[in-house]
Amino acid sequence: MQSERGRKFPEQFFFEHPHDKGSKISLKDFIELELPKILQLSSQQLKGAFKRGTIKFYSDYGLDAIQIRKSIGKIEAGTMICLGKSVEVIRGFPKIRRTLMLEPVLKKHFNSEIALEEKMNGYNVRIARVNNRIMAFTRGGFICPYTTKKANQLMDMEEFFNHHPQLIICGEMVGTDNPYVSQYYPEIGKLGFRIFDVREKLSNKPLPILEKRKLLEEYGLPPVRLLGIYDTHEAAGEILDIVRKLGEKDREGVVMKDPDMEIQPLKYTSSQAHASELEYAFSYPFDLGQAFFFSRVIREGFQSFEMDESDVEIKLRAKRMGESILYPMLETIRLIADDKVAAEDLVIEVDSPDEAEDFVRYLRSLGVIATVVEVKKGKAVIRRLHQSTSDKISNFLNGGLY
Amino acid sequence: MQSERGRKFPEQFFFEHPHDKGSKISLKDFIELELPKILQLSSQQLKGAFKRGTIKFYSDYGLDAIQIRKSIGKIEAGTMICLGKSVEVIRGFPKIRRTLMLEPVLKKHFNSEIALEEKMNGYNVRIARVNNRIMAFTRGGFICPYTTKKANQLMDMEEFFNHHPQLIICGEMVGTDNPYVSQYYPEIGKLGFRIFDVREKLSNKPLPILEKRKLLEEYGLPPVRLLGIYDTHEAAGEILDIVRKLGEKDREGVVMKDPDMEIQPLKYTSSQAHASELEYAFSYPFDLGQAFFFSRVIREGFQSFEMDESDVEIKLRAKRMGESILYPMLETIRLIADDKVAAEDLVIEVDSPDEAEDFVRYLRSLGVIATVVEVKKGKAVIRRLHQSTSDKISNFLNGGLY
Repeated sequence: MQSERGRKFPEQFFFEHPHDKGSKISLKDFIELELPKILQLSSQQLKGAFKRGTIKFYSDYGLDAIQIRKSIGKIEAGTMICLGKSVEVIRGFPKIRRTLMLEPVLKKHFNSEIALEEKMNGYNVRIARVNNRIMAFTRGGFICPYTTKKANQLMDMEEFFNHHPQLIICGEMVGTDNPYVSQYYPEIGKLGFRIFDVREKLSNKPLPILEKRKLLEEYGLPPVRLLGIYDTHEAAGEILDIVRKLGEKDREGVVMKDPDMEIQPLKYTSSQAHASELEYAFSYPFDLGQAFFFSRVIREGFQSFEMDESDVEIKLRAKRMGESILYPMLETIRLIADDKVAAEDLVIEVDSPDEAEDFVRYLRSLGVIATVVEVKKGKAVIRRLHQSTSDKISNFLNGGLY
Repeated sequence: MQSERGRKFPEQFFFEHPHDKGSKISLKDFIELELPKILQLSSQQLKGAFKRGTIKFYSDYGLDAIQIRKSIGKIEAGTMICLGKSVEVIRGFPKIRRTLMLEPVLKKHFNSEIALEEKMNGYNVRIARVNNRIMAFTRGGFICPYTTKKANQLMDMEEFFNHHPQLIICGEMVGTDNPYVSQYYPEIGKLGFRIFDVREKLSNKPLPILEKRKLLEEYGLPPVRLLGIYDTHEAAGEILDIVRKLGEKDREGVVMKDPDMEIQPLKYTSSQAHASELEYAFSYPFDLGQAFFFSRVIREGFQSFEMDESDVEIKLRAKRMGESILYPMLETIRLIADDKVAAEDLVIEVDSPDEAEDFVRYLRSLGVIATVVEVKKGKAVIRRLHQSTSDKISNFLNGGLY
């Protein structure tokens, strides 16, 4: 199978007309005539996006679609307009904004109550049934073959989608055998899925918190933890306590939501999560360090302030921050000095070597440099290279100037 | 006095023709016909630079000049072509490159010997006699009124420039009453000047190390410390030791030079210098944090590696790094929460309130937001505001989202 992700629009692509059953419409006509109506965007906006390359033709894993690479008006990045017997729009998952301070923000942002859900450290996935197949989309709108297979193994979603074909399951793939963000959770182990939103196709409207949980329970589908529903005026202190305790267990943080889901959710994370992201970034300083650093450090400053920490607590936080930057960097410098390369090994479960190769092809199509290291006993080890880090450190160690 | 820095080229500006005494030449003709010959640049290069705004007309403190804002070919940023009875070129001070590793770089970069000079933490100044006045230029090529006055008070340079009108004194203004970079040195106290280079006008050719020191001694002018001249093959270990010891005294670092000054110098700094710069930057995180951070942290990683530190030493370095980021940031957040603003107070010596006002005008012309807070007993306190830091922190504390 050859990847056709992100290729140019094929001139001669025709598919069934969305309104005029039996007749065909070309992709070009569809984008100019039908898509503006569907997305409630002007032809002007779509034309501009098309010119800038913000709209791409996607054809992979049996799906032909129009992929929105960057947000256009209210249409989120990662939106997929799936072309088939009918046109189905899987909207991108909306960016969740972060707050640096809880107390002043919560009162300003929310109504009387806040539903608090745990934010888990994995990767964001949308699952929908399109053309009679249940498929998993990554944040960017790509079908991930591994996630599609695993999500279907982890959850039986047939009945859910039989009854609710217009809904989308949004959740986090978590666990250690997670090729994007590997973190151990005692209740998850190798791989698990936790659902945080159920949304409608096209409108992207999310179900209210309790309705969502009831529906998921009915179909035996796993929600993220609901940590409580709080009175907004008392929430900040409670949430700070909860986040502190989550951090002590090396868990990531929380998402605060309007129980009715009429207001945009907000996220807030633990110091340990910031440290662990710094640690990851500074293992590959010249690939990830620069981009990761500043925001993590800023979060630490405001959190320490709002938690009204003692001198000892501040000292501990500073120590955690310094060590999470210096230690991994030093380790990588030593590695390169020892003629090794900066790389991370991802482990995924596979049924065959082909499946591992397919996943690597998929990663490469996203611009990731990766190779299959070994496939054994249903596990594939995939090595992801951080080339800039290897190259730059090696250059400095060999007498290059900064 | 109204500042005319960086203004457009005056159409009607004429001055004495450099070759054809008695006749006049317009600025426009001078730039098109004479400057290419003087700077050994093509008219093409100069025209392009002129279009991009890289060349500005400068007129201030009694000097009319052409100021090179960004390097053009071999001509450094900060170069001033001074227009007067004769045309004099004060070349910009060349950027000194940094090494992250000593051992591999020194052998590759230098000949058999390395002269090691102390790098002091102040600001770079070039002093030259132009139109019969001794003037001090900042790195960017601006005449600084404070530096000009103080340099002339600190050193008697008349005789030196009588005998050597074609030379330029390049050095560091250091001490606590230093409005740009205030650091205490026991041997300096409030304000002092230390000379690291003596260069020729126009060619920018530096004197060899020993010749320079002999000349300075003759005229009673203060050089930076020469820490030794080392065999290149043994230098790395020695320099690491010296830098470690300088750091313990909170001193900045070293510059390594070819004794003949035929090869570009290199700089290398102490961990304490990195920490203190981080501390400064994170006092004003949204003004300076982002730009400062990454390179300081990278230097720490390589230094720790090359110093082959023990676990305890690495832990100490990580602690210093973490604390130099978190502590000042927290302090500034507290300050803003207390309705104060992010600002630093600079102290300079002045003879009159006018002198303080003049300095503030000068700072403003460079884009710095500053005001005179008080003038008392020959001292002026000048407050420099870090507006982004005040604004952003205040916004986050008042419920703004990140």
